[in-house]
Amino acid sequence: MELWYTEKHTDNVKLSIKIDKALYSEETEFQRIDILESKEFGRIFTLDGLMMVTEKDEFIYHDMIVHVPMATNPNIKNVLVIGAGDGGTIRELTRYSSVEKIDMVEIDRRVVEVCKEYLQQTACKLDDERVNIFYEDGLKFVRNKENEYDLIIVDSTDPFGPGEGLFTKEFYGNCYKALTEDGILVNQHESPYYDYYAKSMQDAHEKIYGLFKIHKVYQAHIPTYPSGHWLFGFASKKYDPIKDLNAEAWEKLDIKTKYYNTDIHVGCFALPTYVKELLKVEK
Amino acid sequence: MELWYTEKHTDNVKLSIKIDKALYSEETEFQRIDILESKEFGRIFTLDGLMMVTEKDEFIYHDMIVHVPMATNPNIKNVLVIGAGDGGTIRELTRYSSVEKIDMVEIDRRVVEVCKEYLQQTACKLDDERVNIFYEDGLKFVRNKENEYDLIIVDSTDPFGPGEGLFTKEFYGNCYKALTEDGILVNQHESPYYDYYAKSMQDAHEKIYGLFKIHKVYQAHIPTYPSGHWLFGFASKKYDPIKDLNAEAWEKLDIKTKYYNTDIHVGCFALPTYVKELLKVEK
Repeated sequence: MELWYTEKHTDNVKLSIKIDKALYSEETEFQRIDILESKEFGRIFTLDGLMMVTEKDEFIYHDMIVHVPMATNPNIKNVLVIGAGDGGTIRELTRYSSVEKIDMVEIDRRVVEVCKEYLQQTACKLDDERVNIFYEDGLKFVRNKENEYDLIIVDSTDPFGPGEGLFTKEFYGNCYKALTEDGILVNQHESPYYDYYAKSMQDAHEKIYGLFKIHKVYQAHIPTYPSGHWLFGFASKKYDPIKDLNAEAWEKLDIKTKYYNTDIHVGCFALPTYVKELLKVEK
Repeated sequence: MELWYTEKHTDNVKLSIKIDKALYSEETEFQRIDILESKEFGRIFTLDGLMMVTEKDEFIYHDMIVHVPMATNPNIKNVLVIGAGDGGTIRELTRYSSVEKIDMVEIDRRVVEVCKEYLQQTACKLDDERVNIFYEDGLKFVRNKENEYDLIIVDSTDPFGPGEGLFTKEFYGNCYKALTEDGILVNQHESPYYDYYAKSMQDAHEKIYGLFKIHKVYQAHIPTYPSGHWLFGFASKKYDPIKDLNAEAWEKLDIKTKYYNTDIHVGCFALPTYVKELLKVEK
Protein backbone atom coordinates (compact mmCIF):
# COMPACT_ATOMS: atom_id res chain seq x y z
CA MET A 1 0.00 0.00 0.00
CA GLU A 2 1.13 3.54 -0.69
CA LEU A 3 0.13 6.29 1.70
CA TRP A 4 0.48 9.90 0.54
CA TYR A 5 -0.09 13.04 2.58
CA THR A 6 -1.25 15.91 0.41
CA GLU A 7 -1.33 19.59 1.29
CA LYS A 8 -3.21 21.98 -0.97
CA HIS A 9 -1.21 25.17 -1.44
CA THR A 10 -4.00 26.65 -3.53
CA ASP A 11 -7.05 25.06 -5.15
CA ASN A 12 -4.78 24.31 -8.09
CA VAL A 13 -1.48 23.30 -6.51
CA LYS A 14 -0.68 20.50 -4.11
CA LEU A 15 2.41 19.03 -2.52
CA SER A 16 2.34 15.33 -1.71
CA ILE A 17 4.65 13.36 0.54
CA LYS A 18 4.96 9.62 0.78
CA ILE A 19 4.17 8.49 4.29
CA ASP A 20 5.51 5.38 5.98
CA LYS A 21 3.04 5.49 8.81
CA ALA A 22 0.39 7.75 10.33
CA LEU A 23 1.62 7.68 13.91
CA TYR A 24 -1.00 9.71 15.72
CA SER A 25 -4.17 11.66 15.07
CA GLU A 26 -6.42 13.62 17.38
CA GLU A 27 -9.23 16.11 17.13
CA THR A 28 -8.69 18.52 20.02
CA GLU A 29 -10.96 21.28 21.27
CA PHE A 30 -9.20 23.62 18.86
CA GLN A 31 -7.90 21.72 15.88
CA ARG A 32 -6.85 18.42 14.35
CA ILE A 33 -3.35 17.22 15.18
CA ASP A 34 -1.53 14.60 13.09
CA ILE A 35 1.92 13.08 13.39
CA LEU A 36 3.18 11.29 10.29
CA GLU A 37 6.36 9.36 9.66
CA SER A 38 8.06 9.83 6.28
CA LYS A 39 11.32 8.83 4.64
CA GLU A 40 12.00 12.23 3.09
CA PHE A 41 11.21 14.51 6.01
CA GLY A 42 11.30 12.28 9.08
CA ARG A 43 8.38 13.00 11.38
CA ILE A 44 5.84 15.54 10.20
CA PHE A 45 3.54 17.45 12.52
CA THR A 46 0.40 18.96 10.98
CA LEU A 47 -2.43 21.11 12.35
CA ASP A 48 -5.71 20.99 10.47
CA GLY A 49 -3.90 19.26 7.60
CA LEU A 50 -1.19 21.91 7.18
CA MET A 51 2.47 21.17 7.83
CA MET A 52 3.83 22.97 10.86
CA VAL A 53 7.09 21.13 11.45
CA THR A 54 9.10 18.42 9.73
CA GLU A 55 12.22 16.93 11.25
CA LYS A 56 14.14 17.59 8.01
CA ASP A 57 13.66 21.33 7.78
CA GLU A 58 12.32 22.70 11.06
CA PHE A 59 15.80 24.11 11.72
CA ILE A 60 15.26 26.73 9.02
CA TYR A 61 12.11 28.23 10.53
CA HIS A 62 13.37 28.04 14.12
CA ASP A 63 16.81 29.44 13.31
CA MET A 64 15.31 32.39 11.53
CA ILE A 65 12.55 33.26 13.99
CA VAL A 66 14.96 33.18 16.97
CA HIS A 67 18.51 34.09 15.99
CA VAL A 68 17.68 37.20 13.95
CA PRO A 69 16.27 39.12 16.95
CA MET A 70 18.71 37.53 19.44
CA ALA A 71 21.74 38.60 17.40
CA THR A 72 20.30 42.10 17.00
CA ASN A 73 20.07 42.67 20.75
CA PRO A 74 22.36 40.48 22.87
CA ASN A 75 20.78 41.85 26.05
CA ILE A 76 17.44 40.12 25.65
CA LYS A 77 16.52 38.58 28.99
CA ASN A 78 12.74 38.20 29.11
CA VAL A 79 10.98 36.59 26.19
CA LEU A 80 7.34 35.92 25.41
CA VAL A 81 6.55 33.26 22.83
CA ILE A 82 3.02 32.95 21.47
CA GLY A 83 2.10 29.60 19.95
CA ALA A 84 5.12 27.38 19.32
CA GLY A 85 3.69 24.32 21.05
CA ASP A 86 6.09 22.08 19.12
CA GLY A 87 8.93 23.57 21.16
CA GLY A 88 11.38 24.39 18.35
CA THR A 89 11.43 28.12 19.08
CA ILE A 90 11.93 27.41 22.79
CA ARG A 91 14.78 25.02 22.04
CA GLU A 92 16.67 27.72 20.13
CA LEU A 93 16.01 30.35 22.79
CA THR A 94 17.33 28.13 25.58
CA ARG A 95 20.71 28.04 23.83
CA TYR A 96 21.30 31.59 25.07
CA SER A 97 22.51 31.60 28.66
CA SER A 98 21.67 35.32 28.74
CA VAL A 99 17.94 34.54 28.50
CA GLU A 100 16.46 34.51 32.00
CA LYS A 101 12.76 33.89 31.46
CA ILE A 102 10.66 32.50 28.63
CA ASP A 103 6.89 32.74 28.93
CA MET A 104 5.19 30.56 26.35
CA VAL A 105 1.49 30.88 25.63
CA GLU A 106 -0.02 28.00 23.71
CA ILE A 107 -3.78 27.80 23.33
CA ASP A 108 -3.85 24.03 22.87
CA ARG A 109 -2.34 21.94 25.67
CA ARG A 110 -2.61 18.82 23.53
CA VAL A 111 -0.14 20.24 20.98
CA VAL A 112 2.52 20.40 23.67
CA GLU A 113 1.68 16.96 25.05
CA VAL A 114 1.64 15.30 21.63
CA CYS A 115 4.90 16.98 20.57
CA LYS A 116 6.56 15.94 23.82
CA GLU A 117 5.63 12.35 23.01
CA TYR A 118 6.28 12.27 19.26
CA LEU A 119 8.55 15.17 18.40
CA GLN A 120 11.42 15.24 20.87
CA GLN A 121 13.62 16.90 18.24
CA THR A 122 11.73 20.15 18.82
CA ALA A 123 10.08 19.55 22.21
CA CYS A 124 13.32 18.64 24.01
CA LYS A 125 13.71 21.89 25.93
CA LEU A 126 10.13 22.57 27.00
CA ASP A 127 11.07 21.50 30.52
CA ASP A 128 13.95 23.98 30.79
CA GLU A 129 13.60 25.73 34.16
CA ARG A 130 13.41 29.17 32.54
CA VAL A 131 10.29 28.16 30.58
CA ASN A 132 6.79 28.86 31.91
CA ILE A 133 3.99 27.46 29.80
CA PHE A 134 0.56 29.11 29.89
CA TYR A 135 -2.29 27.28 28.20
CA GLU A 136 -4.28 30.32 27.20
CA ASP A 137 -5.31 32.44 24.25
CA GLY A 138 -2.27 34.57 23.37
CA LEU A 139 -4.55 37.45 22.45
CA LYS A 140 -5.96 37.57 25.99
CA PHE A 141 -2.66 36.83 27.73
CA VAL A 142 -0.88 39.81 26.27
CA ARG A 143 -3.68 42.27 27.12
CA ASN A 144 -2.55 42.55 30.74
CA LYS A 145 1.15 42.88 30.15
CA GLU A 146 3.07 46.10 30.25
CA ASN A 147 6.77 46.90 29.75
CA GLU A 148 7.71 43.32 30.55
CA TYR A 149 9.37 41.60 27.59
CA ASP A 150 12.50 42.41 25.59
CA LEU A 151 11.33 40.13 22.81
CA ILE A 152 7.96 38.75 21.71
CA ILE A 153 7.96 35.95 19.14
CA VAL A 154 4.64 35.20 17.46
CA ASP A 155 5.09 31.66 16.23
CA SER A 156 1.53 31.28 15.04
CA THR A 157 -0.42 29.18 12.58
CA ASP A 158 -2.02 30.89 9.58
CA PRO A 159 -4.58 33.65 10.21
CA PHE A 160 -7.59 31.37 10.32
CA GLY A 161 -8.74 28.96 13.01
CA PRO A 162 -7.07 29.30 16.42
CA GLY A 163 -4.36 31.64 15.07
CA GLU A 164 -6.75 34.29 13.76
CA GLY A 165 -6.58 36.62 16.76
CA LEU A 166 -2.79 36.77 16.44
CA PHE A 167 -3.09 38.74 13.22
CA THR A 168 -5.25 41.59 14.56
CA LYS A 169 -4.34 45.20 15.20
CA GLU A 170 -5.48 44.86 18.79
CA PHE A 171 -3.02 42.03 19.34
CA TYR A 172 -0.08 43.90 17.83
CA GLY A 173 -0.97 46.99 19.87
CA ASN A 174 -0.96 44.95 23.07
CA CYS A 175 2.37 43.41 22.08
CA TYR A 176 3.76 46.93 21.73
CA LYS A 177 2.59 47.73 25.23
CA ALA A 178 3.96 44.48 26.65
CA LEU A 179 7.42 45.21 25.26
CA THR A 180 10.12 47.18 27.06
CA GLU A 181 11.34 50.39 25.47
CA ASP A 182 13.93 48.55 23.39
CA GLY A 183 11.60 45.65 22.66
CA ILE A 184 11.45 43.60 19.46
CA LEU A 185 8.45 41.78 17.96
CA VAL A 186 9.08 38.99 15.47
CA ASN A 187 6.23 37.16 13.80
CA GLN A 188 5.76 34.51 11.13
CA HIS A 189 4.60 36.61 8.25
CA GLU A 190 3.16 34.21 5.66
CA SER A 191 4.37 34.09 2.03
CA PRO A 192 4.34 36.47 -0.94
CA TYR A 193 3.88 33.97 -3.76
CA TYR A 194 0.36 32.59 -3.85
CA ASP A 195 -2.43 35.18 -3.75
CA TYR A 196 -4.10 33.86 -0.64
CA TYR A 197 -0.94 33.90 1.45
CA ALA A 198 0.20 37.19 -0.05
CA LYS A 199 -3.06 38.77 1.14
CA SER A 200 -2.41 37.49 4.69
CA MET A 201 1.11 38.88 4.49
CA GLN A 202 -0.17 42.28 3.43
CA ASP A 203 -2.83 42.31 6.15
CA ALA A 204 -0.28 41.49 8.85
CA HIS A 205 2.16 44.06 7.54
CA GLU A 206 -0.40 46.86 7.34
CA LYS A 207 -1.42 46.29 10.93
CA ILE A 208 2.12 46.37 12.34
CA TYR A 209 3.18 49.28 10.12
CA GLY A 210 2.74 52.56 11.99
CA LEU A 211 2.81 50.95 15.44
CA PHE A 212 6.57 50.45 15.53
CA LYS A 213 9.38 52.85 14.67
CA ILE A 214 11.21 50.10 12.80
CA HIS A 215 9.29 47.51 10.77
CA LYS A 216 11.01 45.23 8.30
CA VAL A 217 10.38 41.91 6.65
CA TYR A 218 12.89 39.12 6.08
CA GLN A 219 12.77 35.85 4.21
CA ALA A 220 13.88 32.24 4.29
CA HIS A 221 13.75 29.15 2.09
CA ILE A 222 11.40 26.67 3.81
CA PRO A 223 10.64 23.96 1.23
CA THR A 224 7.73 22.35 3.11
CA TYR A 225 5.73 25.60 3.39
CA PRO A 226 3.57 26.75 0.46
CA SER A 227 5.87 28.01 -2.34
CA GLY A 228 8.92 27.51 -0.10
CA HIS A 229 9.30 31.28 0.14
CA TRP A 230 8.48 32.30 3.69
CA LEU A 231 8.59 35.64 5.45
CA PHE A 232 9.08 36.91 8.99
CA GLY A 233 8.22 40.35 10.35
CA PHE A 234 10.73 42.28 12.46
CA ALA A 235 9.20 45.23 14.33
CA SER A 236 11.10 47.17 16.93
CA LYS A 237 11.00 50.27 19.12
CA LYS A 238 14.72 50.96 18.90
CA TYR A 239 16.93 48.31 17.31
CA ASP A 240 17.52 48.10 13.58
CA PRO A 241 18.24 44.48 12.63
CA ILE A 242 21.05 45.41 10.26
CA LYS A 243 22.60 48.55 11.74
CA ASP A 244 22.55 47.14 15.26
CA LEU A 245 23.75 43.65 14.46
CA ASN A 246 26.89 42.90 16.42
CA ALA A 247 28.09 39.96 14.36
CA GLU A 248 31.26 39.52 16.37
CA ALA A 249 29.38 39.27 19.66
CA TRP A 250 27.06 36.63 18.22
CA GLU A 251 29.93 34.60 16.74
CA LYS A 252 31.56 34.56 20.19
CA LEU A 253 28.54 32.75 21.64
CA ASP A 254 29.57 29.80 19.46
CA ILE A 255 25.99 28.67 18.80
CA LYS A 256 26.06 26.06 16.04
CA THR A 257 23.31 26.63 13.49
CA LYS A 258 22.44 24.92 10.22
CA TYR A 259 20.68 27.82 8.47
CA TYR A 260 21.31 31.10 10.30
CA ASN A 261 24.61 32.89 10.12
CA THR A 262 25.49 36.57 10.43
CA ASP A 263 25.84 36.94 6.63
CA ILE A 264 22.33 35.66 6.05
CA HIS A 265 21.15 37.88 8.93
CA VAL A 266 21.84 40.83 6.64
CA GLY A 267 21.10 39.11 3.33
CA CYS A 268 17.63 37.88 4.34
CA PHE A 269 16.31 41.45 4.55
CA ALA A 270 17.02 42.01 0.84
CA LEU A 271 13.62 41.25 -0.67
CA PRO A 272 12.66 40.68 -4.30
CA THR A 273 11.15 43.70 -6.00
CA TYR A 274 7.70 42.10 -6.33
CA VAL A 275 7.65 41.43 -2.58
CA LYS A 276 8.65 45.01 -1.79
CA GLU A 277 5.79 46.19 -4.01
CA LEU A 278 3.31 43.97 -2.19
CA LEU A 279 4.51 45.33 1.15
CA LYS A 280 4.11 48.97 0.24
CA VAL A 281 1.55 50.48 2.59
CA GLU A 282 -0.78 53.14 1.21
CA LYS A 283 -0.46 56.27 3.29
CA MET B 1 -12.71 15.98 -15.78
CA GLU B 2 -9.73 17.08 -13.71
CA LEU B 3 -6.28 17.07 -15.27
CA TRP B 4 -3.25 17.27 -12.96
CA TYR B 5 0.38 17.60 -13.96
CA THR B 6 2.67 15.98 -11.41
CA GLU B 7 6.41 16.43 -11.04
CA LYS B 8 8.33 14.08 -8.79
CA HIS B 9 10.88 16.04 -6.78
CA THR B 10 12.14 12.83 -5.19
CA ASP B 11 10.69 9.32 -5.11
CA ASN B 12 8.77 10.48 -2.04
CA VAL B 13 7.72 14.04 -2.87
CA LYS B 14 5.62 15.37 -5.70
CA LEU B 15 4.19 18.71 -6.73
CA SER B 16 0.94 18.66 -8.67
CA ILE B 17 -0.65 21.43 -10.67
CA LYS B 18 -4.17 21.54 -12.01
CA ILE B 19 -4.13 21.86 -15.77
CA ASP B 20 -6.80 23.45 -17.90
CA LYS B 21 -5.50 22.03 -21.11
CA ALA B 22 -2.50 20.16 -22.50
CA LEU B 23 -1.74 22.46 -25.44
CA TYR B 24 1.09 20.69 -27.16
CA SER B 25 3.26 17.61 -26.87
CA GLU B 26 6.13 16.34 -28.96
CA GLU B 27 8.88 13.77 -28.73
CA THR B 28 11.89 15.37 -30.43
CA GLU B 29 15.21 13.80 -31.32
CA PHE B 30 16.49 14.87 -27.87
CA GLN B 31 13.61 15.01 -25.41
CA ARG B 32 9.91 15.29 -24.80
CA ILE B 33 8.43 18.80 -24.95
CA ASP B 34 5.06 19.67 -23.38
CA ILE B 35 3.16 22.93 -23.16
CA LEU B 36 0.38 23.02 -20.57
CA GLU B 37 -2.14 25.70 -19.73
CA SER B 38 -2.93 26.27 -16.03
CA LYS B 39 -4.87 28.75 -13.93
CA GLU B 40 -2.20 29.13 -11.26
CA PHE B 41 0.92 29.46 -13.40
CA GLY B 42 -0.34 30.36 -16.85
CA ARG B 43 1.46 28.39 -19.53
CA ILE B 44 3.94 25.78 -18.38
CA PHE B 45 6.79 24.46 -20.52
CA THR B 46 8.27 21.12 -19.53
CA LEU B 47 11.15 19.02 -20.88
CA ASP B 48 11.03 15.30 -20.15
CA GLY B 49 8.31 15.99 -17.60
CA LEU B 50 10.26 18.60 -15.61
CA MET B 51 9.13 22.22 -15.38
CA MET B 52 11.48 24.60 -17.16
CA VAL B 53 9.36 27.73 -17.36
CA THR B 54 6.00 28.91 -16.11
CA GLU B 55 4.52 32.24 -17.07
CA LYS B 56 3.92 33.05 -13.39
CA ASP B 57 7.47 32.76 -12.13
CA GLU B 58 9.91 32.64 -15.03
CA PHE B 59 10.86 36.24 -14.19
CA ILE B 60 12.66 35.04 -11.07
CA TYR B 61 15.02 32.66 -12.84
CA HIS B 62 15.66 34.97 -15.79
CA ASP B 63 16.20 38.06 -13.64
CA MET B 64 18.72 36.27 -11.50
CA ILE B 65 20.68 34.51 -14.23
CA VAL B 66 21.08 37.73 -16.28
CA HIS B 67 21.08 40.84 -14.09
CA VAL B 68 23.57 39.60 -11.49
CA PRO B 69 26.45 39.36 -13.99
CA MET B 70 25.25 42.35 -16.06
CA ALA B 71 25.20 44.64 -13.01
CA THR B 72 28.63 43.37 -11.94
CA ASN B 73 30.27 44.40 -15.21
CA PRO B 74 28.43 47.09 -17.19
CA ASN B 75 30.88 46.70 -20.08
CA ILE B 76 29.67 43.30 -21.20
CA LYS B 77 29.31 43.38 -24.98
CA ASN B 78 29.61 39.83 -26.27
CA VAL B 79 27.55 37.13 -24.64
CA LEU B 80 27.29 33.39 -25.17
CA VAL B 81 24.16 31.65 -23.92
CA ILE B 82 24.06 27.86 -23.79
CA GLY B 83 20.62 26.28 -23.76
CA ALA B 84 17.86 28.78 -23.04
CA GLY B 85 15.68 27.80 -25.99
CA ASP B 86 12.63 29.29 -24.29
CA GLY B 87 14.14 32.73 -24.85
CA GLY B 88 13.73 34.20 -21.35
CA THR B 89 17.45 34.73 -20.80
CA ILE B 90 17.76 36.33 -24.24
CA ARG B 91 14.81 38.63 -23.52
CA GLU B 92 16.52 39.98 -20.39
CA LEU B 93 19.88 40.38 -22.14
CA THR B 94 18.35 42.38 -25.01
CA ARG B 95 17.22 45.01 -22.51
CA TYR B 96 20.84 46.20 -22.30
CA SER B 97 21.67 48.49 -25.21
CA SER B 98 25.35 47.96 -24.33
CA VAL B 99 25.15 44.32 -25.41
CA GLU B 100 26.35 44.02 -29.01
CA LYS B 101 26.20 40.32 -29.77
CA ILE B 102 24.43 37.32 -28.26
CA ASP B 103 25.34 33.88 -29.51
CA MET B 104 22.83 31.31 -28.35
CA VAL B 105 23.53 27.61 -28.64
CA GLU B 106 20.50 25.35 -28.27
CA ILE B 107 20.81 21.68 -29.04
CA ASP B 108 17.13 21.22 -29.86
CA ARG B 109 15.71 23.40 -32.63
CA ARG B 110 12.19 22.25 -31.75
CA VAL B 111 12.41 23.88 -28.32
CA VAL B 112 12.90 27.26 -29.95
CA GLU B 113 10.18 26.68 -32.53
CA VAL B 114 7.64 25.44 -29.99
CA CYS B 115 8.39 28.31 -27.56
CA LYS B 116 8.06 30.82 -30.37
CA GLU B 117 4.60 29.46 -31.04
CA TYR B 118 3.35 28.86 -27.48
CA LEU B 119 5.49 30.93 -25.15
CA GLN B 120 5.79 34.43 -26.54
CA GLN B 121 6.25 35.78 -23.02
CA THR B 122 9.81 34.41 -23.03
CA ALA B 123 10.46 33.88 -26.75
CA CYS B 124 9.59 37.46 -27.76
CA LYS B 125 13.15 38.66 -28.35
CA LEU B 126 14.66 35.66 -30.11
CA ASP B 127 14.51 37.59 -33.39
CA ASP B 128 16.46 40.56 -32.01
CA GLU B 129 19.13 41.42 -34.58
CA ARG B 130 21.94 40.96 -32.07
CA VAL B 131 20.94 37.33 -31.50
CA ASN B 132 22.56 34.48 -33.47
CA ILE B 133 21.09 31.07 -32.79
CA PHE B 134 23.22 27.97 -33.33
CA TYR B 135 21.45 24.62 -33.19
CA GLU B 136 24.38 22.63 -31.88
CA ASP B 137 25.71 20.86 -28.84
CA GLY B 138 26.99 23.58 -26.49
CA LEU B 139 29.83 21.32 -25.38
CA LYS B 140 31.18 21.14 -28.95
CA PHE B 141 30.43 24.76 -29.82
CA VAL B 142 32.54 26.17 -27.04
CA ARG B 143 35.57 23.97 -27.83
CA ASN B 144 36.69 26.20 -30.68
CA LYS B 145 36.21 29.53 -28.99
CA GLU B 146 38.99 31.59 -27.51
CA ASN B 147 38.99 34.98 -25.76
CA GLU B 148 35.68 35.89 -27.37
CA TYR B 149 32.95 36.39 -24.77
CA ASP B 150 32.62 38.76 -21.82
CA LEU B 151 29.88 36.60 -20.35
CA ILE B 152 28.79 32.99 -20.76
CA ILE B 153 25.43 31.98 -19.33
CA VAL B 154 24.78 28.27 -18.99
CA ASP B 155 21.01 28.05 -18.90
CA SER B 156 20.90 24.28 -18.94
CA THR B 157 18.55 21.51 -17.95
CA ASP B 158 19.57 19.17 -15.14
CA PRO B 159 22.76 17.13 -15.54
CA PHE B 160 21.13 14.16 -17.22
CA GLY B 161 19.80 13.77 -20.76
CA PRO B 162 20.81 16.47 -23.25
CA GLY B 163 22.21 18.76 -20.53
CA GLU B 164 24.72 16.25 -19.18
CA GLY B 165 27.77 17.54 -21.07
CA LEU B 166 27.20 21.02 -19.67
CA PHE B 167 28.19 19.84 -16.22
CA THR B 168 31.62 18.41 -17.15
CA LYS B 169 35.07 19.71 -16.30
CA GLU B 170 35.95 19.76 -19.99
CA PHE B 171 33.03 22.08 -20.69
CA TYR B 172 33.88 24.51 -17.88
CA GLY B 173 37.53 24.51 -19.00
CA ASN B 174 36.50 25.41 -22.53
CA CYS B 175 34.23 28.14 -21.20
CA TYR B 176 37.23 29.59 -19.36
CA LYS B 177 39.19 29.65 -22.61
CA ALA B 178 36.27 31.17 -24.53
CA LEU B 179 36.01 34.05 -22.07
CA THR B 180 37.94 37.29 -22.29
CA GLU B 181 40.33 38.16 -19.48
CA ASP B 182 37.57 39.82 -17.47
CA GLY B 183 35.00 37.20 -18.39
CA ILE B 184 32.19 35.89 -16.19
CA LEU B 185 30.53 32.46 -16.27
CA VAL B 186 27.08 32.08 -14.74
CA ASN B 187 25.35 28.71 -14.60
CA GLN B 188 22.18 27.24 -13.19
CA HIS B 189 23.51 25.38 -10.23
CA GLU B 190 20.75 23.04 -9.04
CA SER B 191 19.41 23.00 -5.47
CA PRO B 192 20.83 22.18 -2.03
CA TYR B 193 17.73 20.68 -0.42
CA TYR B 194 16.96 17.22 -1.77
CA ASP B 195 19.91 14.81 -1.82
CA TYR B 196 19.81 14.12 -5.53
CA TYR B 197 19.92 17.79 -6.51
CA ALA B 198 22.43 18.60 -3.79
CA LYS B 199 24.78 16.00 -5.29
CA SER B 200 24.45 17.68 -8.73
CA MET B 201 25.15 21.01 -7.10
CA GLN B 202 28.29 19.70 -5.41
CA ASP B 203 29.53 18.05 -8.61
CA ALA B 204 29.09 21.27 -10.59
CA HIS B 205 30.76 23.33 -7.90
CA GLU B 206 33.75 21.02 -7.54
CA LYS B 207 34.42 21.17 -11.26
CA ILE B 208 34.31 24.98 -11.50
CA TYR B 209 36.28 25.45 -8.28
CA GLY B 210 39.94 25.86 -9.05
CA LEU B 211 39.41 26.94 -12.67
CA PHE B 212 38.34 30.49 -11.84
CA LYS B 213 39.91 33.02 -9.50
CA ILE B 214 36.48 33.97 -8.16
CA HIS B 215 33.77 31.34 -7.69
CA LYS B 216 30.64 32.02 -5.70
CA VAL B 217 27.13 30.67 -5.45
CA TYR B 218 23.93 32.69 -5.12
CA GLN B 219 20.32 31.74 -4.50
CA ALA B 220 16.75 32.59 -5.42
CA HIS B 221 13.23 31.58 -4.45
CA ILE B 222 11.77 29.73 -7.46
CA PRO B 223 8.59 28.01 -6.22
CA THR B 224 8.08 25.74 -9.26
CA TYR B 225 11.53 24.16 -9.03
CA PRO B 226 12.14 21.26 -6.63
CA SER B 227 12.18 22.62 -3.05
CA GLY B 228 11.85 26.19 -4.36
CA HIS B 229 15.42 26.88 -3.27
CA TRP B 230 17.52 27.30 -6.39
CA LEU B 231 21.16 28.19 -6.88
CA PHE B 232 23.28 29.86 -9.53
CA GLY B 233 27.06 29.72 -9.91
CA PHE B 234 29.07 32.88 -10.50
CA ALA B 235 32.64 32.24 -11.68
CA SER B 236 34.89 35.00 -12.87
CA LYS B 237 38.46 35.79 -13.87
CA LYS B 238 38.44 39.29 -12.41
CA TYR B 239 35.14 40.71 -11.20
CA ASP B 240 33.79 40.06 -7.74
CA PRO B 241 29.98 40.21 -7.82
CA ILE B 242 29.73 42.16 -4.59
CA LYS B 243 32.89 44.30 -4.48
CA ASP B 244 32.55 45.29 -8.12
CA LEU B 245 28.82 45.94 -8.17
CA ASN B 246 28.16 49.49 -9.29
CA ALA B 247 24.60 49.78 -8.02
CA GLU B 248 24.21 53.38 -9.09
CA ALA B 249 25.23 52.64 -12.67
CA TRP B 250 22.72 49.79 -12.87
CA GLU B 251 19.91 51.91 -11.38
CA LYS B 252 20.58 54.53 -14.06
CA LEU B 253 19.77 52.02 -16.79
CA ASP B 254 16.20 52.09 -15.47
CA ILE B 255 15.54 48.45 -16.25
CA LYS B 256 12.27 47.44 -14.56
CA THR B 257 12.54 44.07 -12.85
CA LYS B 258 10.14 42.08 -10.69
CA TYR B 259 12.67 40.06 -8.68
CA TYR B 260 16.17 41.45 -9.12
CA ASN B 261 17.30 44.65 -7.44
CA THR B 262 20.69 45.83 -6.28
CA ASP B 263 19.93 44.95 -2.64
CA ILE B 264 19.13 41.36 -3.52
CA HIS B 265 22.22 41.32 -5.75
CA VAL B 266 24.25 41.44 -2.54
CA GLY B 267 21.80 39.55 -0.30
CA CYS B 268 21.50 36.53 -2.60
CA PHE B 269 25.15 35.60 -2.02
CA ALA B 270 24.50 35.11 1.72
CA LEU B 271 23.92 31.37 1.87
CA PRO B 272 22.50 29.26 4.70
CA THR B 273 25.12 27.48 6.78
CA TYR B 274 24.08 24.03 5.58
CA VAL B 275 24.50 25.12 1.96
CA LYS B 276 27.96 26.55 2.68
CA GLU B 277 28.90 23.23 4.25
CA LEU B 278 27.71 21.30 1.20
CA LEU B 279 29.76 23.59 -1.05
CA LYS B 280 33.01 23.15 0.83
CA VAL B 281 35.50 21.57 -1.55
CA GLU B 282 37.97 19.08 -0.10
CA LYS B 283 41.49 20.19 -0.87
